[in-house]
Amino acid sequence: MPSPLRNGNGTRNRHLDLFVSTVSERKIRRLNYLLLLFRLASFSFSLASAVFTLSNSSPSRSQLDFLSFRLLFAANAIVAVYSLFQMGAASWEIIKGPTLLPESAQLWFDFSHDQVFAYLVLGAGVAGAAETGRQRLTQGPICQGDGESYCIQADISVALGFAGFLFLALATLASGFRLVCFLATGSRFPM
Amino acid sequence: MPSPLRNGNGTRNRHLDLFVSTVSERKIRRLNYLLLLFRLASFSFSLASAVFTLSNSSPSRSQLDFLSFRLLFAANAIVAVYSLFQMGAASWEIIKGPTLLPESAQLWFDFSHDQVFAYLVLGAGVAGAAETGRQRLTQGPICQGDGESYCIQADISVALGFAGFLFLALATLASGFRLVCFLATGSRFPM
Repeated sequence: MPSPLRNGNGTRNRHLDLFVSTVSERKIRRLNYLLLLFRLASFSFSLASAVFTLSNSSPSRSQLDFLSFRLLFAANAIVAVYSLFQMGAASWEIIKGPTLLPESAQLWFDFSHDQVFAYLVLGAGVAGAAETGRQRLTQGPICQGDGESYCIQADISVALGFAGFLFLALATLASGFRLVCFLATGSRFPM
Repeated sequence: MPSPLRNGNGTRNRHLDLFVSTVSERKIRRLNYLLLLFRLASFSFSLASAVFTLSNSSPSRSQLDFLSFRLLFAANAIVAVYSLFQMGAASWEIIKGPTLLPESAQLWFDFSHDQVFAYLVLGAGVAGAAETGRQRLTQGPICQGDGESYCIQADISVALGFAGFLFLALATLASGFRLVCFLATGSRFPM
């Protein structure tokens, strides 16, 4: 039963909808910039950690001789590659608007991989930290004289891995927030 | 400008609202049962892991002599106490309806603590696993003869810690979902 009143109402609603969707879009865009920032930081730290681990050796040993440090290297290399891919996807989204994969698939992919890789890189960081502590405490002579710089570089590679984990954990929060907003309301960032 | 049509419309909306809020309530209740289940499992496994670590000793050594195992014990004890408290809070919510703390505070508290404790207990589990592996590989005689049962019990305590982590991670997903739903829509479980 159409009437002028209803039509007027409809127009107002259309304006409201447009306003809501504009605000929503701006917030999605801001969240995307934040995610891109977290991924950039996570990429940088993980790559640095992997490079430090790979290149560290003293005359008597290389850091990759130890299982825990090999795990640290592998986890950080994986996270660096993953973050690089995600930086590409986030840039695509910021430039083009829609997500690279279909929206729902992309949101699930982002959050699940973020979560799993955050656990992986945290575990590798702890294993690396335990190994550096053990080498310092129980095998004193390693860290003296020539070995001093080896031990310091090993500490740095572990610390860089934790920094990468921190930013990946922040990215997990942001992508989890996006995913649940989408599931609950059908939009990645409701008003 | 009230009219019969509008009134009728309003009544239908009221019925719809009531229906939506009933369905919503049932879903919140189901999510609460799921959370209670995860917390019960996480409590059981963490407590078992802490007790196993505490009680494990061979004639020549106790498991708590090692820093990594002390970390494993502390993290699992903390998670067991936390899970016990959360089981109380979840039961209260299921019986009484509203949350124990004010709703928003409770949701933030749940998710943030779940997330942090999940990272903590995962880190401790990895440190414990690295230590059991090291004792087995580099100090062969520990795990032979009398030490055999010591090493097996150490493995079990680490495995129980990981099982506790798994259920805490599931609880984190559920409490994170609740929190973001609440932030995005104002209800812990929108239709």
